[in-house]
Amino acid sequence: MPVPTPIAWTPDHRIRILDQTLLPSEERYLELDSVDAMVEAIQMLRVRGAPLIGIAGAMGVTLAARGGKGSAPEMRDRVRHAAETLRRARPTAVNLAWAVDRMWRRAAAHPSAGDLHAALLAEASAIWEEDRQMCERIGFAGQPLLRTGVSVMTQCNAGILATGGLGTALAPIYCAHRSGLEVQVVVPETRPLLQGARLTAWELMQSGVPCTLITDGMVASRMRRGDIHCAIVGADRIAANGDVANKIGTYGVALAARAHGVPLYVAAPRTTFDFATPTGREIPIEERSPEEVRGFGDTRSGPEDVPTWNPAFDVTPSELIAGYITDAGVLKAGEFDRLR
Amino acid sequence: MPVPTPIAWTPDHRIRILDQTLLPSEERYLELDSVDAMVEAIQMLRVRGAPLIGIAGAMGVTLAARGGKGSAPEMRDRVRHAAETLRRARPTAVNLAWAVDRMWRRAAAHPSAGDLHAALLAEASAIWEEDRQMCERIGFAGQPLLRTGVSVMTQCNAGILATGGLGTALAPIYCAHRSGLEVQVVVPETRPLLQGARLTAWELMQSGVPCTLITDGMVASRMRRGDIHCAIVGADRIAANGDVANKIGTYGVALAARAHGVPLYVAAPRTTFDFATPTGREIPIEERSPEEVRGFGDTRSGPEDVPTWNPAFDVTPSELIAGYITDAGVLKAGEFDRLR
Repeated sequence: MPVPTPIAWTPDHRIRILDQTLLPSEERYLELDSVDAMVEAIQMLRVRGAPLIGIAGAMGVTLAARGGKGSAPEMRDRVRHAAETLRRARPTAVNLAWAVDRMWRRAAAHPSAGDLHAALLAEASAIWEEDRQMCERIGFAGQPLLRTGVSVMTQCNAGILATGGLGTALAPIYCAHRSGLEVQVVVPETRPLLQGARLTAWELMQSGVPCTLITDGMVASRMRRGDIHCAIVGADRIAANGDVANKIGTYGVALAARAHGVPLYVAAPRTTFDFATPTGREIPIEERSPEEVRGFGDTRSGPEDVPTWNPAFDVTPSELIAGYITDAGVLKAGEFDRLR
Repeated sequence: MPVPTPIAWTPDHRIRILDQTLLPSEERYLELDSVDAMVEAIQMLRVRGAPLIGIAGAMGVTLAARGGKGSAPEMRDRVRHAAETLRRARPTAVNLAWAVDRMWRRAAAHPSAGDLHAALLAEASAIWEEDRQMCERIGFAGQPLLRTGVSVMTQCNAGILATGGLGTALAPIYCAHRSGLEVQVVVPETRPLLQGARLTAWELMQSGVPCTLITDGMVASRMRRGDIHCAIVGADRIAANGDVANKIGTYGVALAARAHGVPLYVAAPRTTFDFATPTGREIPIEERSPEEVRGFGDTRSGPEDVPTWNPAFDVTPSELIAGYITDAGVLKAGEFDRLR
């Protein structure tokens, strides 16, 4: 069973997304025709994953010029406003800002109103296609780290549902699987929003890759059992020194991996590297609603008014990372010049 | 608001338990009048927490002799069968086996049928009262490790709802709170069964102790923030070398604590120490149903048929433990002779 694509154009250039908040129980698609609808979809995590948010943001910018009337300056104003609004939808992933800024530069350089929408469609499609190719290259670069029979631990979802292609963390696994290697994945559920359980386990099963679901508190114990070959996670932002912001729980995976001599790799395209941010300390970390920690879906677990702490991401220092699987090969911290 | 007692006798010597599976949304009590009902309550975690399971097992044994007819040998057979059945209800906590064995020895030494039930009631009540006193001593021993203004991390529930008294891990915190110290608790929710969210956060709020609920994947990141003074957890079994079996997730707390120089204390009464088990490797670890990992309550998170791994406990090696807060004071591994 092929995995459904998480984002697509409709024939009339609205944007069709798979509502990831409803997986795995329901596969429902939404058609978005306004910038505000795309902002809502990004903020509510209907579309999520750092690379996919970048693509969605770029595609969302095109909606400001769709069927557009007005002079070139008026349309550019609408596009700039859309880019600014989308840029603020989520603060941590660098891909979103990068993608909408690129869309804005494309619009700013465009002389006429008549074909601005077509130009933006082409630019957004290029961003998407480049991401798809980067996923392939990440998979190709990472596959040699695996061999048949191994188990890989991941965290959150950095797969098909998070990107425009095969994923980042999961790309080496999909490439290995396609090459006939027997690779298994151990998937922490990734509370509070359970992207591991809902998305990673789902897309791996749809793709025929064996997986085992665990809770986040089982990560360290599973590492201790000795059957994890390596851990591969994605990234929302990588600072210049190699510190990595990724989904909350990643740092715990990193500490458990180090304690058991398991190498931890971070898989990400070059767009995730933020050379303007020196270290992880400068990465803004989004804090989300207490309700996410107090329960899930319709089921409340904590007391109604219990105080919570709910950072969406954590920072893993570069010294815990064995390598960065990028579209330019597997790098160490300090070798990032090859990405510029 | 006082915290309700998790177990009690009814006037006619049935056993009234607070059904902890329904907390925090509902405070429902069950009255148990058979050994099978108590086995079910223990297995379904309606009554849980290593010390409280011991008390519940002991009280459960009395039900085999309640209103009992028959000769002394017949009644002793029923009691032995009850003890054996209850002993097997959960395999990891040593307190349960210890308590029902003590009940059986009491029955075996009892000459007559007529007052066997009364003798067993007295023995079970003694086990309960001893546990209550051990909790007080643990609290008294552990309180000097705290000072006003500190935050303590715990895991799972080792409080009033887990014991016959003030708890084990939470006892020093309650003692400090009663002494007027301002102590806060950071509570990981403790998937899959969410005892941290459902029970620890609830009883701390009922007791007026400030707390913050986090998910298990936030533990390492919270330690990194630098505002955790120490971690205190309970134990289901402590091996002779000091290795500790406790609720799954504890080992991750231990690794994060070590990485950030935060001392980890294990609080437990002497009944939790199992000198017959040399190390953590020999402690049997209960594996529970995949359904617990695939969702919570009525909410499914993982795919219906996803394979899972669901150990209820993990083992934290003694070298990660700064001290054992016991009813005989705060000990180091190697000082356990003071408990014999």
